[in-house]
Parts: sequence; structure tokens; C-alpha cells
Amino acid sequence: MAEQERAIRTRMTILLAAAKVFEERGYLAATISEILSEAKVTKGALYFHFPSKEDLAQAVLTAQHQEFGIPDHPSKLQEVVDILLRYTYLLQIDPMVRAGARLSMSQVADGLDRGEAFNPWVERFQERLEKAQAQGELLPHIVPAETANVIVGAYSGVQTMSQVINSHQDLPARVTTMLRHLLPSIAVPSVLASVDLSEDRGRKVYEAGKKAYEETQAHAPAH
Amino acid sequence: MAEQERAIRTRMTILLAAAKVFEERGYLAATISEILSEAKVTKGALYFHFPSKEDLAQAVLTAQHQEFGIPDHPSKLQEVVDILLRYTYLLQIDPMVRAGARLSMSQVADGLDRGEAFNPWVERFQERLEKAQAQGELLPHIVPAETANVIVGAYSGVQTMSQVINSHQDLPARVTTMLRHLLPSIAVPSVLASVDLSEDRGRKVYEAGKKAYEETQAHAPAH
Repeated sequence: MAEQERAIRTRMTILLAAAKVFEERGYLAATISEILSEAKVTKGALYFHFPSKEDLAQAVLTAQHQEFGIPDHPSKLQEVVDILLRYTYLLQIDPMVRAGARLSMSQVADGLDRGEAFNPWVERFQERLEKAQAQGELLPHIVPAETANVIVGAYSGVQTMSQVINSHQDLPARVTTMLRHLLPSIAVPSVLASVDLSEDRGRKVYEAGKKAYEETQAHAPAH
Repeated sequence: MAEQERAIRTRMTILLAAAKVFEERGYLAATISEILSEAKVTKGALYFHFPSKEDLAQAVLTAQHQEFGIPDHPSKLQEVVDILLRYTYLLQIDPMVRAGARLSMSQVADGLDRGEAFNPWVERFQERLEKAQAQGELLPHIVPAETANVIVGAYSGVQTMSQVINSHQDLPARVTTMLRHLLPSIAVPSVLASVDLSEDRGRKVYEAGKKAYEETQAHAPAH
């Protein structure tokens, strides 16, 4: 058990070091030796957890998609908004999420990504938009798969632009403005009027999700 | 005169070769020797026109922003749409434009771009949106600078996504869907109803612009 915990901690140390190096140097330029010297672990430990640089990148990318953070909400459109606002908040406070975003961008630019960076997002949005549609939240002409693709594409461009122009400092404002341009074409007016886009929403959603997750962990059976 | 023409042709040969190499290899990986062997010109000729790899990249990026292609239209919102649809069309037929898009993406990912890829677009849209606003085409709450930023961010993400997923094959459909999601929050209903988003619009705008440009050239005084 103690050994397993140590292994988990080592894995996380390596992952955070990789995230840092990928973020600073870009995927192609980053080397295993830089990650080793950042993580301060042995080469053996690193290769035990991650056989290649690609595996490291994959693990950093996966780490951004932890689903635990989105509390249920009666409005499924609000959940779509919450995913975006929570991620926007995480981009400002979490080095792993920032590295994941940078890494996606590098892999896309270097032709190493064939849609993997976008697909998990599209699926998450499409699923919620279908539920929103089933309960009458969406305008009649909406096709959830199309709208999910527009949201992912638009968000990813707005995020990149903000990263490039001022390292995500104005990202919350840009995302809110983007949503104010998109939502009126998606939601029925009554839902539109009640969607919460407030500045503090991302942090609140993140903290509520974290609390719920920690409670689950506390009650999980030991094994 | 003949010498000047030859110089212009050599410059274009080098630029097209650079575009090809940048598109295939990415900015960082591309080398001057690859560009030389693609262009089949002497090293002296290349350095005469472009002192560095960065100058080459800059010239490819500039080549995508030729303004001549957008014919005047009574609706300035239609002009905004026309810029996007024309560029979407060019991404499918023009290697220089495709290389420029790929290059922007690489430079953004490698941290070499501090907004230069986005700013010329924002300016073009903002200017037209201000005119559209002045003649009553926009909903009263619209702030042209904000809307221009949303359009550029959203388009750039949608374009990247389409490039990654199927090399721009579905880009026209994605752009139309994106515009159908954005325009209802921007335009007054009467303008919205008359905006032309048809499949063939990009090609038509491109050809009209090209024809107008060629007529100007034909009537330009010799010098």
C-alpha cells in the first residue's frame, strides 16, 4: 500500500515535470533528459511509468479531461457553459491544464494530432446538448453534433488567441463574450435568460466539483 | 524592366517553395537548404530576396492578406462574411494560403507569434463592423471590437479543427454552421435574412475580386 502510494506520487512528479517542460519548450523540442532533470527521478523510474515521450504527452493530455469537476445542473446547457468556464478557470491556475492546452496546440501544429485533442470535448458537449434538447432547452433547428463542433472549434480558437496575445489573462472575458455571441442562436429565450455566465462561475463550479470528488474519496472503501 | 520582371518571378518562385516546405515540415523543422532545393535557385538569389528564414515566413504570412479580393457590397456584414468565405475557398485551392495558415499555427504553437497572425484579421473585421453599425445593420448592443475578436478567434479554431480532422475538406460546411451560430446575435433580422452564406459564395467573391484586380492592372500606366 505504502509502495503503491509512492509509485502514484512518483508518477505525478514525473507528469508535472513533463507538463512544465512541454509547456516551456513545446513538444518537439522537449527532451526526456530535460524532464528527468526537472523531475529529479531516475531514468528507470521514468521509463517504468512512461515508456516514451509520446506516452508522457498522452498522460498530460488525459490529465486535463478529468470529468469529476462538473456538478449536475437541471439545465444541461448550463453544464455545457460550466465545462467551458471551469476549464477557463483551470487554465489560469493549474500548470497541468496549461501544459495540456499548449501541448494540444503543438501537436496540432506539428501534425501529430488527428483530432484527439478535439474529440473528447465534442463528445462531452454533444451528450449534454442532446439532453438539453430532450428537455426543451434548445431552439428547434439545433443539431447537437453540429453545435458541439462549433463550440469546441470556437472555444479552441478563442483560447489560443488569448494565450498568444496575453498568456490567458483576458481569457475569462473573451469566453464570456464568445458565449454571449453563441448562446442566443442555441437556447430558447427562457433558458438563455437564466444561464449563469458570471465572472466567478468557473471558480465556483471547480470548487463544488472538487468538494464532491473529495467526499466520494473519503467514503470509498479501503482496498 | 525585363530584369525587374525576372526578379519578381524569382521572388515568387522562392516564396512558393518556402510555402511548400513550411506546410510540409512546419516552421521549426524547415531548413533554408530544403527551400533552396525546392526552389532551384542559387543561395545568392534567395538571400538577396530574403535575408533569413524568418523573412521568408513573414512574406508567406503577408501573402495571405492580399486585400484585393473583396468587392464592395452595400451590406458591410456581407463583406465580413465574404472575407471568411473567400479565405475558406482559398484554403482549398491556393498552396500559399494553406502554407500561411499552417505557418501561423506553428508560430503560435512555438510561441513565435505574439498576435501578428490575428491582428490583421481583427482590424479588417472591426473596420467593416463599424461601418455596418453606422448604417444600422447590427443589433444595438454590439461592440464592433469585441465581435471582431470573437469572429477571428472562432474562425481560427474552426479552421484548425477542420485542418486536423480532414485537411480542410469539411471547412466550408463548418464555416457556414459557425456563421449560422454567430450571425443571429450580431445582425438585425432584416440584414440576417439577406446575408448570402451559400456554398458557392466563396468562389464567386474570389473570382469577382480577381477580375476587378486584373482590370485595374490592365489599365495601370506602364512605368
